[in-house]
Amino acid sequence: MTARLLTALREIVGANGLVVAADQRLVYECDMLVYYKGMPDLVVLPRSTAEVQAVVRCCAEAGVPIVPRGSGTGLIGGAMAPKGGVMIGVNRMDRILEVDLRNRYAVVEPGVINLALTRSVENRGYFFAPDPSSQMVSSIGGNAATNAGGPHALKYGNVAHHVLGLELVTGTGDVLTLGGVVAERPGYDLAGIAVGSEGTLGVVTKVMVKLTHTAEAVRTAVATFASIEIASAAVSAIIAEGIVPAALEAMDEPIIRAVEAGVHAGYPTEAKAVLLIELDGPAAEVEVQAAAVGRICREKGSLTMRLARDDAERALLWKGRKEAAGAVGRITHNYVLQDAVVPRSKLPTVMAEIQAIGARHGLVVANVFHAGDGNVHPMICYDERVPGEFERALEANEEILHACIELGGTVTGEHGVGMDKAEKLAMLFNQDDLEVMHAVRRVFDPHGLMNPQKVFPSGQHACAAPSVGAGRPVPEGMWV
Amino acid sequence: MTARLLTALREIVGANGLVVAADQRLVYECDMLVYYKGMPDLVVLPRSTAEVQAVVRCCAEAGVPIVPRGSGTGLIGGAMAPKGGVMIGVNRMDRILEVDLRNRYAVVEPGVINLALTRSVENRGYFFAPDPSSQMVSSIGGNAATNAGGPHALKYGNVAHHVLGLELVTGTGDVLTLGGVVAERPGYDLAGIAVGSEGTLGVVTKVMVKLTHTAEAVRTAVATFASIEIASAAVSAIIAEGIVPAALEAMDEPIIRAVEAGVHAGYPTEAKAVLLIELDGPAAEVEVQAAAVGRICREKGSLTMRLARDDAERALLWKGRKEAAGAVGRITHNYVLQDAVVPRSKLPTVMAEIQAIGARHGLVVANVFHAGDGNVHPMICYDERVPGEFERALEANEEILHACIELGGTVTGEHGVGMDKAEKLAMLFNQDDLEVMHAVRRVFDPHGLMNPQKVFPSGQHACAAPSVGAGRPVPEGMWV
Repeated sequence: MTARLLTALREIVGANGLVVAADQRLVYECDMLVYYKGMPDLVVLPRSTAEVQAVVRCCAEAGVPIVPRGSGTGLIGGAMAPKGGVMIGVNRMDRILEVDLRNRYAVVEPGVINLALTRSVENRGYFFAPDPSSQMVSSIGGNAATNAGGPHALKYGNVAHHVLGLELVTGTGDVLTLGGVVAERPGYDLAGIAVGSEGTLGVVTKVMVKLTHTAEAVRTAVATFASIEIASAAVSAIIAEGIVPAALEAMDEPIIRAVEAGVHAGYPTEAKAVLLIELDGPAAEVEVQAAAVGRICREKGSLTMRLARDDAERALLWKGRKEAAGAVGRITHNYVLQDAVVPRSKLPTVMAEIQAIGARHGLVVANVFHAGDGNVHPMICYDERVPGEFERALEANEEILHACIELGGTVTGEHGVGMDKAEKLAMLFNQDDLEVMHAVRRVFDPHGLMNPQKVFPSGQHACAAPSVGAGRPVPEGMWV
Repeated sequence: MTARLLTALREIVGANGLVVAADQRLVYECDMLVYYKGMPDLVVLPRSTAEVQAVVRCCAEAGVPIVPRGSGTGLIGGAMAPKGGVMIGVNRMDRILEVDLRNRYAVVEPGVINLALTRSVENRGYFFAPDPSSQMVSSIGGNAATNAGGPHALKYGNVAHHVLGLELVTGTGDVLTLGGVVAERPGYDLAGIAVGSEGTLGVVTKVMVKLTHTAEAVRTAVATFASIEIASAAVSAIIAEGIVPAALEAMDEPIIRAVEAGVHAGYPTEAKAVLLIELDGPAAEVEVQAAAVGRICREKGSLTMRLARDDAERALLWKGRKEAAGAVGRITHNYVLQDAVVPRSKLPTVMAEIQAIGARHGLVVANVFHAGDGNVHPMICYDERVPGEFERALEANEEILHACIELGGTVTGEHGVGMDKAEKLAMLFNQDDLEVMHAVRRVFDPHGLMNPQKVFPSGQHACAAPSVGAGRPVPEGMWV
């Protein structure tokens, strides 16, 4: 970071738009996966596309890495700076620019908080459907960059299904408009490629998103089971009947204990496993589906089923679910978090394998996951103060991922790749596939300055292996 | 086409896999938009990915253009060879390789006919949701290459929403696997970019698609209106209430006349406009929604509404709708077909403008369109035997497209770009946007051999303006 570059950036964003002091930059050294650390040399907080463009051009000229960041709630070692450089925080670009309910879209700046968009339209009967558990703090720009999922992705799809278009400042400082406010996208679907590209193609400066009509009715139920494998089998059976719940979430016994210790959400602590099942749609449909789901769960061995009586009870159940990842700190000092996918029919198998792998390493594995999507989130509990536990947790984590791949799954469900899964892409893609992705990246970012060391296996980088830090106790504010 | 290349290709696909004679190649000179003509020097009909790869490598070595083709039902000047070269017809690659109903996907070769996939799974309660009107003859490979739409795209989404992954042979003969059978796609969404790329990135040799559970109940209604503008306003009102019909199609008076003359589908010939409204889902939901749609249509001025009594009546209504484009030959010698999009709320405005443009040029414009999507298909009727009519039709067509763009729409809804809309992309994208698309193309096809002169404005090509043929009477087998 030369004095010349610093001066140039200060001229663009003003002194208020810079984070210079090391102690203030410390919060930017990692995302919520604190295992990967790398502090930017400077954080800039632009207020407009023009400022982002000017910042990128200065950095590109100086050959300095550029790392975009939303709210920093990712879980992949993504919005952090392993090579230092300039971080572009989009938090001050937080205006909702346009809402068109007749045509069901909104245009927002990237720093708009996910839930804030829903809050701004819900009294008119609409919402922004993607709901990562972090939605009360995560930004729509970050959601788009990581193609975030969430419990309701089962019915409504992940963020890619809700982004109509993007404005992107590329690694060379060009401002591109990809897609638009109508769903059809003539030419190549570059908006689709930008979603989930994790800041490696450019900085998202505007997002055009779909708004969804609020369902007439919602029913939320908690069913208990004698094991997580049995609960998983019920998940397959529900979907196989042609019912697509709004959400279909599973939690095992360690998670239930942690949630109830932390959130008191009303889950039965004696249960070995629960499914949180939400149905929404026209009232008539929801009633019929609720009856069918009840029958299927009973047939598949559910022990109890309880319907939330009112919105307050429903909200509390969801609070428990959404804060589960942070609550796990109640039952363990540390954990390693996995995010992987198996074909839904393989859920019972993989749950049994996960338990076996944990047992083999002498570690508790807690499971809270988007069961309907086959998207598992095993949390391998360990204590960094016990010599060898961390290493065993990492081994178990690796074995779990391999088990998912062997069952026909993939290396990341909704969190993305970042540093954490970069090497893992080689498990899915051959060298030709990866080289094409890398070549596509060069189109947008010819000098490799945009969020370096992310997404691609390091063989694809011109730099060394990622630097990693030590473990750290589980923070409460953390969401899967 | 050198003798050496011909020999090499014969060795790969066998004499039976070649179409050499000019009279046999004639059917390959255009897609269903017969305005654009260009005969390939040779057609090869490979049977496997390995054969496609070998063919592409031979052509690439010889610097000969390569044009992939499915069933040739496109409407964009797409699967035809303006620069000659080798056409790769995928019709003999027509095996359904895998069906996994538990995990709801199928893996098919690109020549599998759209409806054949549904036929193979419907008795087990599933279907392949994308239903372009050509679905009884068009191929899934072609559907994927053009990101085809169809009446039911309103609820179920176009083909991009149903493609999980693709195998693609690039312009250099590399075999890439993009995406996979689970919905999540780590890394860049290259499957998404390949869908809709119209053969300019490579030859699709395998498609992994979602299968959808058949709805419990279906209701189909025909509502009549005093004008197409009033019918269009009812469309907006239905969607604004949060109802997403499975399909919501509009036809105006000239189309109704043509359909009844050709298909006798039971549409009321005295009506000035009809909406064909289909609702599907759980029976309880469908009943409630049918009542709501009836009420909204009445409030918005519908004159009559009729529910199809049985599957036979429903099938006949759909036969009329799906064969409408061919039936227009009953009322005109020729027509120019437009495919454009406006934000749904602008439908009444654009319908009025289309009629005004037609009147100004002294031409009848017939309208059959996917109203729910805002995807219009004006057909500008003319007679090529009347001097000046064709030129006036082209002018009217151009004015209609401009009107759609000015209303916030886009240049193609579901047919794609091909030669027909290549120049039009410049109405939506600036030079930077187009250069990025072109650079992405070079990643897959560095020598520009894959389906040349398609998709990109000719300024992006190193070749002259497209060659165009004369008009031709409307063929009956033609679908929008």
